[in-house]
Amino acid sequence: MNAESVEASAASAAGTLEESSNMTTIGRHEFESLWTELSEIGRDPVRGGYSRHTFDDADLQMREWFVAEAAARGLDVETDRNGNIWAWWAAQGAAQRAPAGEASGAVSGALPGDGAIVTGSHLDSVPGGGAFDGPLGVVSALLAVDELRARGTEPARPLAVVCFAEEEGGRFGLPCLGSRLLTGATDPDAARALTDRSGITLADAARRAGVDPAHVGPDPDRLGRIGAFVELHVEQGRRMHAADPRAAVGIASGIVAHGRWRITITGEGNHAGTTAIADRHDPMVVAANAVVAARAAATERDGAVATVGRIEPIPGGTNVIASQVRLWLDTRYGAMEDTDAAVDSIVARIRQFAANEGCAVEVQRESASPEVRFDAGLRDRLAAVVPGPIVPTGAGHDAGVLAARLPTAMLFVRNPTGISHAPGEFAEIDDCVAGVGALADALEALAGANNPAPN
Amino acid sequence: MNAESVEASAASAAGTLEESSNMTTIGRHEFESLWTELSEIGRDPVRGGYSRHTFDDADLQMREWFVAEAAARGLDVETDRNGNIWAWWAAQGAAQRAPAGEASGAVSGALPGDGAIVTGSHLDSVPGGGAFDGPLGVVSALLAVDELRARGTEPARPLAVVCFAEEEGGRFGLPCLGSRLLTGATDPDAARALTDRSGITLADAARRAGVDPAHVGPDPDRLGRIGAFVELHVEQGRRMHAADPRAAVGIASGIVAHGRWRITITGEGNHAGTTAIADRHDPMVVAANAVVAARAAATERDGAVATVGRIEPIPGGTNVIASQVRLWLDTRYGAMEDTDAAVDSIVARIRQFAANEGCAVEVQRESASPEVRFDAGLRDRLAAVVPGPIVPTGAGHDAGVLAARLPTAMLFVRNPTGISHAPGEFAEIDDCVAGVGALADALEALAGANNPAPN
Repeated sequence: MNAESVEASAASAAGTLEESSNMTTIGRHEFESLWTELSEIGRDPVRGGYSRHTFDDADLQMREWFVAEAAARGLDVETDRNGNIWAWWAAQGAAQRAPAGEASGAVSGALPGDGAIVTGSHLDSVPGGGAFDGPLGVVSALLAVDELRARGTEPARPLAVVCFAEEEGGRFGLPCLGSRLLTGATDPDAARALTDRSGITLADAARRAGVDPAHVGPDPDRLGRIGAFVELHVEQGRRMHAADPRAAVGIASGIVAHGRWRITITGEGNHAGTTAIADRHDPMVVAANAVVAARAAATERDGAVATVGRIEPIPGGTNVIASQVRLWLDTRYGAMEDTDAAVDSIVARIRQFAANEGCAVEVQRESASPEVRFDAGLRDRLAAVVPGPIVPTGAGHDAGVLAARLPTAMLFVRNPTGISHAPGEFAEIDDCVAGVGALADALEALAGANNPAPN
Repeated sequence: MNAESVEASAASAAGTLEESSNMTTIGRHEFESLWTELSEIGRDPVRGGYSRHTFDDADLQMREWFVAEAAARGLDVETDRNGNIWAWWAAQGAAQRAPAGEASGAVSGALPGDGAIVTGSHLDSVPGGGAFDGPLGVVSALLAVDELRARGTEPARPLAVVCFAEEEGGRFGLPCLGSRLLTGATDPDAARALTDRSGITLADAARRAGVDPAHVGPDPDRLGRIGAFVELHVEQGRRMHAADPRAAVGIASGIVAHGRWRITITGEGNHAGTTAIADRHDPMVVAANAVVAARAAATERDGAVATVGRIEPIPGGTNVIASQVRLWLDTRYGAMEDTDAAVDSIVARIRQFAANEGCAVEVQRESASPEVRFDAGLRDRLAAVVPGPIVPTGAGHDAGVLAARLPTAMLFVRNPTGISHAPGEFAEIDDCVAGVGALADALEALAGANNPAPN
């Protein structure tokens, strides 16, 4: 069943579904038992937090853990042609179980039946990242399977837990690489040639992990058999808190547009001790005003963010006025045209400061990710069983990539400080348990025996 | 003759001296011939300009060139215990010529007679530096000897041309190392242990250059025999232009105080896409305001400079709000208490921005170089024969280090753009020729047969 047929079979069953909510049997103990198994894998002694980079030792240990946990639950595990791992709970009568020989390293072919409901997230991290970004969605998915079984729910559709590869782009630089390859959004040759900081290609790293790089690329058969994808994730930021401070779980409306720009400011290198202020063409002063302008532009626009996290003066000596400064501007706001307009206003201010200082400015766009709006019908189906706020996010996700090809949705677990991509990332255990219950409710609504098809 | 006896014998002879001015026989041709010999030594193909770092191949080539040029002029050449090269034109009747066997590598002992007038500068450069900073003073000194001989001047005192080692600190990090060791301002053990970027110690590098590191250290006998030191240098900045736009040559009044501070701003690392502006504690925003505050504080104080040429965000990712930013502030203004007051005002503003952003600030002073005022009597003697403006400078020099122990002075050659420590550093040939004439006039005034002792 493809996305269209899923939509065609949609019907309302909200009344029935609400009755199944809150019948959670997975509690703090069950969550902590599974969660603790990951707590020592890939700790980063220098940066703090975790560094689990696709196909490195820590990531392979995470993947082995997942395969073992899925197998312990009787799920059929396979790794697809792009290194994404799938664990199938085939629905009675609807499943075409993969032959045993293709349980690992299989390419598309004997896949479980159409209209599958898929959940999951990723196991890799940014350098020195938090514990929750990625693994929370995977652990919650496994526990939601346990919860559904405890409830006696027998899915009428195939159900799968997926771990996407290289979601963070922390090793090869391109985020959501596993889902991008799956959907054909990234060229396989370009992907194979990506290198990490040591110069190792994705092709070599994949081969080491048992994934044949010759086969990476689009997998339309697999995509066509997925009815819907629901990703649970720790919230990054605190939009949920702003919308409803009491809600532990929320639903994503979409992902705001995102762009990256490299801004090069060229002045005149000179002696820091002897060059009068009036004679200076100091690109650092322009760069500083660029940072201030980015902050101002974001503050002036409700919900916008603009960040300079990387700045490189040349030559970078203490007693030398820089000849050039390069800085990177990351801006996210509404739709792409909103983001572009915000950046245009920042660049206009930079050019004015540069003119005053006698410096030249070059602006180069490095990436553009248009706004994602998650499927409205699927979102409403989730909202019927998950009563939390519906909020957008500024972070990219595999669900955002898949949204171009099939109905996708996201659940968020509350993050009290909003910190993410840093060691301090945190969610309360009780909130995580609430997330498991919400995900189980959502899956039951979409795949449960007495429930209609999604959307 | 030591500094005191030099002062005791001072008398005015301005009338006589002025008659000798402008009798320059060294012209464009002579200057260009000697200058061109250096034009290909130590070019930096990456940064542009020149990289001549103490005791590296380029620097050794420069030193060999100097020894050959000095020998060709019949000067007696010796390298002192600290790697500084001296070329002596011993005065008739006043000289104790060094035995031939000690012409190179000699330590103090059989030095030329007391009350010597010394000129010169240095041959090393900053990385990617200009052609003039250092070599102009050495080339001009050799040509001034030619000029005095062409005039038939027979010095009544010993006269020497010196090349100080590691003036820029470009290899071992400590500027004016050769003069600091000579005067005892730097501990020999600390100096021997200094390392370059490859981990090579000063001791090993000196040994390679034929300088025994066991002997580096103070040389009071040598210092005691110097009556005065006059260094000619390209101006760095354009204070001369502000004082008198027509003057090709000027005189230094002193070196303004100079300090370096490392400022560490600690915030909260977070996700650049999902962290609302209101939730941010972004040290980059505080650092940017620090750069703006430094510029403002310098602009508010006539003659002050404040520079941030080096800034390091941690972790430095495009899509990550930095957790910490370190920046280095170089400030130079009047006396040390003036510099400190300017920095106090900058730090106060930084602390206010940091408080607004919820960041912490740590300020550490890395160096403090008090103001130098060159000897007033010697300056007036030069002013009687060199009619240019008398201006301070923000750059450190060996003349500033020696000023603590003996009468020193500096002549500046006009720098039309003010650029220095960069490939664009420049002086017109005609101005350089005027500098040679001025230096010859100055040396004749101080060491000439019919002239009184300096100051």
